[in-house]
Amino acid sequence: MNVLDIIAKKRDAQKMNREEIDYLVIGFSKGRIPDYQMAAWLMAVYLNGMDAEETAWLTQSMLVSGDRLRLDSLPGRKIDKHSTGGVGDKVSLILAPLVATMGVTVPMISGRSLGHSGGTLDKLEAIAGFSTQLSVEQLFAQLEELGVCMIGQTEELVPADKKIYALRDATATIGSIPLITASILSKKLAEDLDGLVLDIKTGHGAFMQNRDAATALAHSLVTTAKANGLNTTAIVTDMDQPLGLAIGNWLETREAIQTLQGEGPRDLLLVTLHLGAHMLRLAGLLPEIEAGVGVLKQKIDSGAAFDRFKRLVKAQGGDCRLLDNPGLYPQSRYEIPIFAQESGHLAELNARTLGQAVVRLGGGREFLEDAIDYKAGIVLDKKIGDRIQKGDRLAQLYSDRPSVHDVAVELQSVFRIASQAVEPPPLIIEEITNH
Amino acid sequence: MNVLDIIAKKRDAQKMNREEIDYLVIGFSKGRIPDYQMAAWLMAVYLNGMDAEETAWLTQSMLVSGDRLRLDSLPGRKIDKHSTGGVGDKVSLILAPLVATMGVTVPMISGRSLGHSGGTLDKLEAIAGFSTQLSVEQLFAQLEELGVCMIGQTEELVPADKKIYALRDATATIGSIPLITASILSKKLAEDLDGLVLDIKTGHGAFMQNRDAATALAHSLVTTAKANGLNTTAIVTDMDQPLGLAIGNWLETREAIQTLQGEGPRDLLLVTLHLGAHMLRLAGLLPEIEAGVGVLKQKIDSGAAFDRFKRLVKAQGGDCRLLDNPGLYPQSRYEIPIFAQESGHLAELNARTLGQAVVRLGGGREFLEDAIDYKAGIVLDKKIGDRIQKGDRLAQLYSDRPSVHDVAVELQSVFRIASQAVEPPPLIIEEITNH
Repeated sequence: MNVLDIIAKKRDAQKMNREEIDYLVIGFSKGRIPDYQMAAWLMAVYLNGMDAEETAWLTQSMLVSGDRLRLDSLPGRKIDKHSTGGVGDKVSLILAPLVATMGVTVPMISGRSLGHSGGTLDKLEAIAGFSTQLSVEQLFAQLEELGVCMIGQTEELVPADKKIYALRDATATIGSIPLITASILSKKLAEDLDGLVLDIKTGHGAFMQNRDAATALAHSLVTTAKANGLNTTAIVTDMDQPLGLAIGNWLETREAIQTLQGEGPRDLLLVTLHLGAHMLRLAGLLPEIEAGVGVLKQKIDSGAAFDRFKRLVKAQGGDCRLLDNPGLYPQSRYEIPIFAQESGHLAELNARTLGQAVVRLGGGREFLEDAIDYKAGIVLDKKIGDRIQKGDRLAQLYSDRPSVHDVAVELQSVFRIASQAVEPPPLIIEEITNH
Repeated sequence: MNVLDIIAKKRDAQKMNREEIDYLVIGFSKGRIPDYQMAAWLMAVYLNGMDAEETAWLTQSMLVSGDRLRLDSLPGRKIDKHSTGGVGDKVSLILAPLVATMGVTVPMISGRSLGHSGGTLDKLEAIAGFSTQLSVEQLFAQLEELGVCMIGQTEELVPADKKIYALRDATATIGSIPLITASILSKKLAEDLDGLVLDIKTGHGAFMQNRDAATALAHSLVTTAKANGLNTTAIVTDMDQPLGLAIGNWLETREAIQTLQGEGPRDLLLVTLHLGAHMLRLAGLLPEIEAGVGVLKQKIDSGAAFDRFKRLVKAQGGDCRLLDNPGLYPQSRYEIPIFAQESGHLAELNARTLGQAVVRLGGGREFLEDAIDYKAGIVLDKKIGDRIQKGDRLAQLYSDRPSVHDVAVELQSVFRIASQAVEPPPLIIEEITNH
């Protein structure tokens, strides 16, 4: 087999076969095929696409580049949730322990913040001592005892994805539906799951800003998961405005704690319960979504979910005192409010602009090597559709950087206030399933 | 400026500006921009194209990556010819000294054989001692005395092209009209010419096998040359069958000598005189092509052209005894004929297959590092349209390799013989000029 022929085939928009994809992915993963040849092929895929069969083969080639968890010995169905990422999306912190209280095993592997978009690992590490790297023995022991772990990608699982993703990031080939599909699913297939729920964000703050692209990605993921034998449901949800009120790592973790204590924002709770109900359905426990939502709500009200979260934090080395006493957390040097300069109804609240502002406040990163100030971020007081009186506080900014004042001034225009009443956007937009 | 934005722009089929192209080409040439980013951009250019202005800017960026000859001090107009390459194309060896006899300065820079396609430098080096590397001082002295030199690309002229071409070769991005245009013209502009004639080959043995693609390339070259102030005429000529009868380095050089002595094949002479007449027109000497053809024919008949070739070979260190006595050349171990197995008319003679066969006989190379057997090759006895009697010799193969017998058997079917009479294909297909 010849690399140039393989590149030329995709360049000429022809369908590749399984052997060619294997040759390329394994060759690149092992360092036999150089970066520049893979880069040319990735751009050809970006521009000419791949069909469902090619995407499934790519996913499998990436999967077999590394190890795979073997969770058969553990009790319960193994179900995970993956989000395409957004601003204020702290769902995983609530959802994973919550669903585990139902006897479902949740071996959750998450990512980090980058650019405007947050990451679950950073939110967890905002809790002093929390470790997102567990040995395989720790992982099994914890899943057996608590039914839940929350960890980062390891070197052993899907090394091809790590290498390909880094190259895509450096060659403007991130936004390709087949490449995104293979990247997400190869990692989830390596978790040896019985079912997967995908939260596909759409809107200003999402990776897929365009609704049609989000739907297309959802279909690609669900189809490719099916081809690989994984029962999967994709939910397209709104990310025009942030989810919940808090943006920034510790601020979001604190909001997750509040939600686990029954005091979270309505939209965050609603999305979490809905995704959780789909996990229960995939686990074969409760086929009706409404019923699942009700049962999970009870697990929050009874304190069982928060208790499971505390045990999870303790098991992974985190400082549990912060969970009962969030006030113990260090304070930011600056806490700067933004006030409404007119009355009306909040009509727009660009999640991307707010996510980028959090990076400027020190709470995010431009590059994966950058350090994060976990305290920094924004807490909103208003969401789209809310009535506003001139002088109302719209948000509070938290930062150790004096530039927080400039950010506050610039963010004023993000809160677009209309004279007429505004409907809040629908939260759950669409559901696509393969089983 | 950001490399990722530049790649994304071409990926999204947007028009690039001059600064972006400069940034990319100079950055890559100097090693600041890595191979993989350039490779992704090259594939995006391959698939999304470039307009005339972008192609002109790319050409200029590549041109300024290196030095440029300064030939103002030399007498006469400086005119060169460039061919896109083919099988049996030994035109340059005849044309350069021939046109120089008219007082035109021909500072010819040529390339090497690769794959099925021959290269002028290898044909010249088939003459023992011939050097295709001259110092700048030698170059000027020779151009002043003889009006002609025939050399290879230097390190100083257009280093960006060398680097980009190598990357295109390794990423299946060779066949892009804007990239080919910039590659050819940046090198020709570095020669400081007053005019340029381009021989765009089309057919089986050409790089541009498809006639429309050849025409499109001719238009792109002529338009881009105009944008860079270079008077240029492109002639699209046939390369379905080989040009002349000889294929292989020494065999072609010998045929060039015969042609300079007035005894060459008709098609080779016709194409050479036609291209030469266009060079004379570009030099402002003879506006009528027919008149130019006539004058150049006289320069052959008088012996002036052959004499100039001998002086050229001598000046560049070649063994001139071979020119008067080609029989002195070493003989191949095997000389294997192919005979006609039926009577009729020769209807097809695939130049590409014949060029590839010469590589197998030892007379070409798969990779630029490969050594060449200058003696090896094929001499045809028949061309398309010729009447054939069963038992006629169709060709003779020359090689030191025993596998010549297999090649002879396989080549039998290349000589497709039809029962009806066949018209020879037209040699000169189209002319496109910018002045």
